[in-house]
Amino acid sequence: MFDKVTIIGIGMIGSSIARVIKKEHLAKKLVAYDVNLTYLKQALELKICDEVQDDLIAAVKDAELIIYASPVGTYSEITRNIVPHLKDGTIITDVGSVKRCAIRDVEKHITDESGIVFVAGHPVAGIEKSGPEVGFAEMFEDRWFIITPSARSTEEAITKISKLWAKAKMKIDIMTPKHHDKVMAAVSHLPHLIAFSIVGTVADLEGYEQQEIIKYSASGFRDFTRIAGSDPTMWRDIFLNNKETILELIQRFVEDLIALQRNIRWNEGDELFKLFSRTQKIRKEVIEAKQHQMEEEKRLTNNQK
Amino acid sequence: MFDKVTIIGIGMIGSSIARVIKKEHLAKKLVAYDVNLTYLKQALELKICDEVQDDLIAAVKDAELIIYASPVGTYSEITRNIVPHLKDGTIITDVGSVKRCAIRDVEKHITDESGIVFVAGHPVAGIEKSGPEVGFAEMFEDRWFIITPSARSTEEAITKISKLWAKAKMKIDIMTPKHHDKVMAAVSHLPHLIAFSIVGTVADLEGYEQQEIIKYSASGFRDFTRIAGSDPTMWRDIFLNNKETILELIQRFVEDLIALQRNIRWNEGDELFKLFSRTQKIRKEVIEAKQHQMEEEKRLTNNQK
Repeated sequence: MFDKVTIIGIGMIGSSIARVIKKEHLAKKLVAYDVNLTYLKQALELKICDEVQDDLIAAVKDAELIIYASPVGTYSEITRNIVPHLKDGTIITDVGSVKRCAIRDVEKHITDESGIVFVAGHPVAGIEKSGPEVGFAEMFEDRWFIITPSARSTEEAITKISKLWAKAKMKIDIMTPKHHDKVMAAVSHLPHLIAFSIVGTVADLEGYEQQEIIKYSASGFRDFTRIAGSDPTMWRDIFLNNKETILELIQRFVEDLIALQRNIRWNEGDELFKLFSRTQKIRKEVIEAKQHQMEEEKRLTNNQK
Repeated sequence: MFDKVTIIGIGMIGSSIARVIKKEHLAKKLVAYDVNLTYLKQALELKICDEVQDDLIAAVKDAELIIYASPVGTYSEITRNIVPHLKDGTIITDVGSVKRCAIRDVEKHITDESGIVFVAGHPVAGIEKSGPEVGFAEMFEDRWFIITPSARSTEEAITKISKLWAKAKMKIDIMTPKHHDKVMAAVSHLPHLIAFSIVGTVADLEGYEQQEIIKYSASGFRDFTRIAGSDPTMWRDIFLNNKETILELIQRFVEDLIALQRNIRWNEGDELFKLFSRTQKIRKEVIEAKQHQMEEEKRLTNNQK
């Protein structure tokens, strides 16, 4: 499918794409670049790429496709550095969870003359662990890959990227970057932020023994720690780069939580029951939409590898 | 172990205890009572008890042990109704998630003369589905059973109840009701409340398509819907009966969330990174404490039965 492919950032997602590319023979040569030398060493030992490079320019030289799988905050500098060294027609794509800033940060360094193409994408998949050792090729199966076309996208490149992710068994969706960032703020960014926040709160409570919190964590807290165990750099960059939407949603959430607090204070049991019945119904819809529990289970199994 | 045992409330937890009692032959006769006639019919079809009763007094007649597995808000009226019909030495126990109110509501109806014993208990286990069909005997394995002794508890009865739950393969812990309610507010009640709240918020967002929220729920939202799919009546009663502690914790949580909101607004990436690194460390502690993922996986598997 491609001659040379370079993956920038060989962490959990990057290494999983690498595994797909190797497994499906999608590139003649697959190169991994990372600033983390341990990751590069592990990637080599895992045999998930043909070559590792700690020199960015050498890594992207003659590449036909470059996949950004590093935190979105790194895109601008990476692009600025590599663009002068890329050949005409090179496709850059990414896997970031925010798309407006990704497009802005990449495209500001691409000139008309360079002939470089960018296809912003987001595989809605992943686990809450980091590094090349926790990746696996099946991570993307039956999940959605969202493409958000922009000024530097071409139909041909979009088709190629779609085919690549279809090989990872993903379903392809196309939407505007703005719509993507809005939907993800609600279904992914806000829930992650709340999880980070509550784990911090509970861990900091004065007058509680940390050990006891951990001991009884199976009663609810544990599920939040799983989400709050996600990569700190990646999430810092997501929150800072989808700021306006996230700030608005936090506000909405706090309003609703305060209303709930008031219901509890004034013993408004009927209101609580009404809300909890609605959320129970939503859970049923999530289950009915697909076999979510099967996917969850598979993910947990793979988590343990 | 017992002659006649009566389980009041044959839902997810009640039916799981019933399965343990049948499997381990812990009672000569096991009776299930519920206000939900469908549950009683299902319990009979599942053969998890010897007899079902929709008459409370008939259900508890001659019982040696009565297990409350109904929402904590029902305890007072049930106790008031059954106490005059119980024989001397009858043990009442429960599985509620709040213990101070459970003890208050039960013991106010027990006189010195009645000879009735109460042992408040809480199996820290369960899944987010309701009804007798979703229960299973292995639910309690390797989890903690907390006993909170009170005025009407006897050493002998505590030993009996401990042995019963040890047969369900639970580890036994003893603490004061006050301490139980404080710890559970942090590790269980607050996380559940936040999950109910965020699922309500996200589902209600104007300008979003419900269908799209469900479609991309795998990116974080789904995990919250699982927790927010828990039984509405049970959780209403928990929040109203552990009110003071929960209200205080909500306040603490909102403070921390607002601080986080401010960090995002002012691009304080270092602060975000610091918090997320701490929560990642806590996740590692949860995993190291036990094989939590194995338990999660087992639970999910059982969820699908």
